[in-house]
Amino acid sequence: MTAHPPASPSTVPLPAGFRAHAGSAGLREEGDDVVVVVNEGPAPASSAVFTRSLFAGPSVVLSRTNAASGRARGLVVVAKNANVATGEQGMANAREVLDRAAASVGVPPEGLLIASTGVIGRQYPMDLLRTHLDGLAGAEFGSDALAVAAAMMTTDTHPKTAVREMTTTTGSTAQVVGVAKGVGMVEPDMATMIAVIFTDAAVEPGVLDVAFRAAVDDTFNCLSVDTDTSTSDTAIAFASGTAGEVAEDELRAALKAVCLDLTRQLARDGEGATKLLTVEVTGARDRGQAKRVAKAILNSPLVKTAVHGADPNWGRVAMAIGKNHEDTDIDPERVRIVFGDLETYPAFPGEAELERLTEIMSAEEVTISVDLGVTDSAADAAGGTDGAGGSAGGSCTVYGCDLTREYIAINADYTT
Amino acid sequence: MTAHPPASPSTVPLPAGFRAHAGSAGLREEGDDVVVVVNEGPAPASSAVFTRSLFAGPSVVLSRTNAASGRARGLVVVAKNANVATGEQGMANAREVLDRAAASVGVPPEGLLIASTGVIGRQYPMDLLRTHLDGLAGAEFGSDALAVAAAMMTTDTHPKTAVREMTTTTGSTAQVVGVAKGVGMVEPDMATMIAVIFTDAAVEPGVLDVAFRAAVDDTFNCLSVDTDTSTSDTAIAFASGTAGEVAEDELRAALKAVCLDLTRQLARDGEGATKLLTVEVTGARDRGQAKRVAKAILNSPLVKTAVHGADPNWGRVAMAIGKNHEDTDIDPERVRIVFGDLETYPAFPGEAELERLTEIMSAEEVTISVDLGVTDSAADAAGGTDGAGGSAGGSCTVYGCDLTREYIAINADYTT
Repeated sequence: MTAHPPASPSTVPLPAGFRAHAGSAGLREEGDDVVVVVNEGPAPASSAVFTRSLFAGPSVVLSRTNAASGRARGLVVVAKNANVATGEQGMANAREVLDRAAASVGVPPEGLLIASTGVIGRQYPMDLLRTHLDGLAGAEFGSDALAVAAAMMTTDTHPKTAVREMTTTTGSTAQVVGVAKGVGMVEPDMATMIAVIFTDAAVEPGVLDVAFRAAVDDTFNCLSVDTDTSTSDTAIAFASGTAGEVAEDELRAALKAVCLDLTRQLARDGEGATKLLTVEVTGARDRGQAKRVAKAILNSPLVKTAVHGADPNWGRVAMAIGKNHEDTDIDPERVRIVFGDLETYPAFPGEAELERLTEIMSAEEVTISVDLGVTDSAADAAGGTDGAGGSAGGSCTVYGCDLTREYIAINADYTT
Repeated sequence: MTAHPPASPSTVPLPAGFRAHAGSAGLREEGDDVVVVVNEGPAPASSAVFTRSLFAGPSVVLSRTNAASGRARGLVVVAKNANVATGEQGMANAREVLDRAAASVGVPPEGLLIASTGVIGRQYPMDLLRTHLDGLAGAEFGSDALAVAAAMMTTDTHPKTAVREMTTTTGSTAQVVGVAKGVGMVEPDMATMIAVIFTDAAVEPGVLDVAFRAAVDDTFNCLSVDTDTSTSDTAIAFASGTAGEVAEDELRAALKAVCLDLTRQLARDGEGATKLLTVEVTGARDRGQAKRVAKAILNSPLVKTAVHGADPNWGRVAMAIGKNHEDTDIDPERVRIVFGDLETYPAFPGEAELERLTEIMSAEEVTISVDLGVTDSAADAAGGTDGAGGSAGGSCTVYGCDLTREYIAINADYTT
């Protein structure tokens, strides 16, 4: 696996075997708002992970059913309307969207998934969608992942894509290309993530599913902008099979790298965010404890505001650790708190370290590392090899952002 | 029990049997910063409830021990320094503070409790405290609850007191007087609550403890400003016995009323808050489920910013309910969401109700009521009688505030 050059590429092609259409149905004032992607590869495979929200809408319910085969053939994404809390009419509308899209692109409707984000409690504007979807029958499809990512956006400040290459078992090259939309909202609605990963590798659905779920668990499931869980969160992986087989390790590493890249982009572009905040916890009893403590720190408004203010406030980190009062095996006397590469507790940095600490806290990426001292973290570290962190027993890395006035402005003021 | 007239009383006397000294040891630039209260009644009784934080400091550790008898005779409150994460020296300092205060007021040190709030990870300025505490031997003590409340404050915008009267079994009057400090911070430290309740009723420690814990559970434990749990949270009740016996029901109602009054004041004065947000959940399987859902709504940054922006955004409330995905007995089709007295889901208010909704959301107190429909909430309602809500099986009421730019300013900018 080799890293693709980063930073605002002018085009990001989808891997072989996929064709995509990003177009405007008139759901938003400007720009594309409906995406249809079809997997035309010789060996289509898919895996999908959905929100666990009790208020999941028809898109999630339908997609969950259609994804069960592991052989989904494509995806429809509708922007601006989450189609959540819309009752029987909402479910009928979602079915109709899939039926019409399926008819236009020539796949059975039960082979399509659907993802929607946007306003809650309002029906799709079906007249607009019918016209648009029926028109796709004669439309030209392309392979522009950047256009797909752009059409999915809500308050995202830029489209998010990530690319990694793999080597197939015959020595040729296969691709993993991911697109994602954030953690943002348009009107009186909610933070919502959609991530779609495409690969032209040939992979059995069962293998893809295990590899993708492992990647999601260490990346998107370790992302938190404001603790709120969307009714619509959806992550999907499609494999076309066009490029031939890759070793399972190679696939896992590339999937995880693309998901991690997108996760960091989503965190950094969280509503109002000015900084990427990474929290690494080691030395925990198990990964569950590590993740619980890491999320308590990542989600603490007091920690998030301290990071925003570039304040090396380890007391607030100690407070956030202390909230996990059921974890009685955590002994404050064995805990270590590190900002960047500088220990703040129990070292109690003096005036001499203050300049270095301020530098660390003022950077665009702030990493807080905590060793809980419940187990020997040196042993944990030996378990992590892929650079994504988070998977070793007793450790976990999570991704978020600072809390700013702009978050308040976006969510308190810019509503209907 | 009769309600005391509210609003900025110029003096609030402590009940009979207590004497208090609020003075300046020089810990803050202006105003009092150390409080010593002594219970001189004929039948001293006490009850105390502390933070469950793993990082609880020497004040909490010492007070927990000294409160165990149910016969604590007094309290020392130190402002500006939490004495948390201060190691063995911090524990020795806390002991010395109690020893010196005890010697000056003539009670055994193991009869005193101690509560501290403020900066974390720094030792008490012991020279200042020694001079101040030794000087109390000849000092004049008074009975001014307002001065006690003021000396305890951090970023509180006003001292918080609450008073209720009770009738004793012989027909005379007894008092319950409460003081509390917020949910605010001074320097690079943490949200911290201290509440102290005084009564001149005669009550056995066991009875006081049961009544006080029940009151705390429905009030202070239902308060959340930013989900962060202090290392120093302390709530204490003292009874002097001077005024004679009261019926247990009378005591419970008065304790709860005073605690609820203080809780609402603390929520309303949360950092940066402009509104009191009350969330009532009914129709839950049990109180635990009701509280979990109520807190998910109360703590959601998206709900809190919507309340700040006066946006009747029931979609965000649905999202917050949906986060409790382990509560699979919650069926979205049976859920009702009400803002003020107006149902928003599943009623979907139209244009006609919009003006009324805006009025409700623009008030200084916003109440969001959710009926989960898991059980029959009419049956629950019959269980609640005391106006404090929250104690009926399957229901819970929690108290918080909106999330504002000023919260960010206080916690990101005004730090060292």
